[in-house]
Amino acid sequence: MRIAIDAMGGDKAPAEVVAGALAAVDLIDDNELVLIGNEDAVRPYLEEASGWEKKLTLVHAPESVDMDEAPVEALRKKRKSSIAVMAKMAAAGEVDVIMSAGNTGACVAAAQLRMRLLPGVIRPGIVVVFPTFAGPVTMCDVGANVAAKPSHLYQYAIMASVYARQVVGIAEPTVGLISVGEENAKGNELIKKTNQLLRDDPNLKFVGNVEGRDFIKRPADVIVCDGFVGNVILKLTEGLAEGLFKAIGREIGRLKPELIPHFEPVIKSLYATHDYSEYGGAPLLGVDGNCIICHGSSNARTIKNAILVACKMVRSGVNAQIAQEIGNMSVTEE
Amino acid sequence: MRIAIDAMGGDKAPAEVVAGALAAVDLIDDNELVLIGNEDAVRPYLEEASGWEKKLTLVHAPESVDMDEAPVEALRKKRKSSIAVMAKMAAAGEVDVIMSAGNTGACVAAAQLRMRLLPGVIRPGIVVVFPTFAGPVTMCDVGANVAAKPSHLYQYAIMASVYARQVVGIAEPTVGLISVGEENAKGNELIKKTNQLLRDDPNLKFVGNVEGRDFIKRPADVIVCDGFVGNVILKLTEGLAEGLFKAIGREIGRLKPELIPHFEPVIKSLYATHDYSEYGGAPLLGVDGNCIICHGSSNARTIKNAILVACKMVRSGVNAQIAQEIGNMSVTEE
Repeated sequence: MRIAIDAMGGDKAPAEVVAGALAAVDLIDDNELVLIGNEDAVRPYLEEASGWEKKLTLVHAPESVDMDEAPVEALRKKRKSSIAVMAKMAAAGEVDVIMSAGNTGACVAAAQLRMRLLPGVIRPGIVVVFPTFAGPVTMCDVGANVAAKPSHLYQYAIMASVYARQVVGIAEPTVGLISVGEENAKGNELIKKTNQLLRDDPNLKFVGNVEGRDFIKRPADVIVCDGFVGNVILKLTEGLAEGLFKAIGREIGRLKPELIPHFEPVIKSLYATHDYSEYGGAPLLGVDGNCIICHGSSNARTIKNAILVACKMVRSGVNAQIAQEIGNMSVTEE
Repeated sequence: MRIAIDAMGGDKAPAEVVAGALAAVDLIDDNELVLIGNEDAVRPYLEEASGWEKKLTLVHAPESVDMDEAPVEALRKKRKSSIAVMAKMAAAGEVDVIMSAGNTGACVAAAQLRMRLLPGVIRPGIVVVFPTFAGPVTMCDVGANVAAKPSHLYQYAIMASVYARQVVGIAEPTVGLISVGEENAKGNELIKKTNQLLRDDPNLKFVGNVEGRDFIKRPADVIVCDGFVGNVILKLTEGLAEGLFKAIGREIGRLKPELIPHFEPVIKSLYATHDYSEYGGAPLLGVDGNCIICHGSSNARTIKNAILVACKMVRSGVNAQIAQEIGNMSVTEE
């Protein structure tokens, strides 16, 4: 297996991306890492590790897409960007999986354009495995598609259920749909129509609408939402957890400063089991190939973990199963 | 001022609603409370307080709308429900403000139908004052309108800015728009068009799009979003704060059980200043009258605080100012 990594993608690239790749080399058996990026920028970080040439390959891509560039336009203008080069290599079968912590929109667009979609898939969706205190929640979509239709959300339910089964290891995953109330009639038109599609499919274990309040209690194994709402949920949760820990720390400092050293290991222990970066990367489901989207703020550990997620995804055969189940479905709404 | 309270609304009605009303009686000067609900159900709780007849009035409404009923249908069928009777009294000028912890959709529909909207307002929106650790965030809409258009969100920005100025006490409130990225081009069509409207209005202090990640840091005094997203944010934050506190408690119990008694006052202190129920009620802005939506799980303290919010709202003259500023705006999109 050849794993391509966008060395230029993310707030901390290329330093942390290269460090993450080097950290993963010994954990991926015979599989091969391919770093894609500007040689001048990447090589200095590689040379800190002696004998790196034996462990991974560097492919030169002179350009890179900035985090705030308009995705489609950037891809059109920067045909030699690391993201564009990487997607082209995947389309040509030169690598088995691509990953980037860079511009999410550009990565989604490049994958969709070059690698194409699995037969029957209408839109790809980003799936995140969310470490709640009650166990992992598989959520789709968290930002690939901010103009979702009921048929897209219906397919996200199918694709995320396959992912939960084959990668997360949940035999018969239940599915919940984010809405403003549990009753089937609660929500906007998108949600009401999706709710009907999910209820009508006997192959899904649909438990109904779920509310934001219950999210952390893991109301279902799989949570479906449109990319706008999913992205807000993901980022809000991240910001809120960080904010609350800080506020508790400040309050302990104010009321009982002598307890601070005792409190730190508690937070560290919580973070160790529930930190999003432990999961590393978020696969873009629905693409005819393997594409992993990493958090823009990824550090070396996140990248290392994302590489392991990439290996797991390729080995899981999740795409063949998605193609089969999407083929079996009967979409009644577009 | 006469303040009408739906005695039948909410998960803990009528017990907690009546208790909240009785607790508020001495805090509202010469203003008068009117409890609306089924006499047989409400009276026993009132009679626990001697001399209650001198403090508040009970108006009989034989029916009540259940939490999970379809709003418009419920109002059509249950013309003698507490919500319907209350809204009719407000329309007739018999009460100055109405409040309910019951079916939000029914309350919004009744207010819109009976009390009508302020001149120029297209859709009412629920405004919540959110106690972040960095100060209060005034957020609109959190659930009145799940099919928002750009012109609705634009008006929410205006109405919530007036509310932040006249009720929360922020002289020149800044406005942020929830999206999936800070750049103006990030988001779905609704957000992109709203972003343009907000940028074009020189009377608003628009700071641009804000992300879920920064919500807790209070990226703006006023946050605008559609009712679906706002409702998810509100409930997710609630559930997450509760879940995190519990998880920390469990982790302390596992790692350092002897610290639990020291940790409890820290949490209590945080809750005392940042508990949503301290703010009590959420006004429905845009209605030609005063309507306060309370949390379905409201307890006596929440109801008491909501009554104080109701007094403040009526006295603030917020509606006259909203009518004036909505009159001055030039909507360029519907």
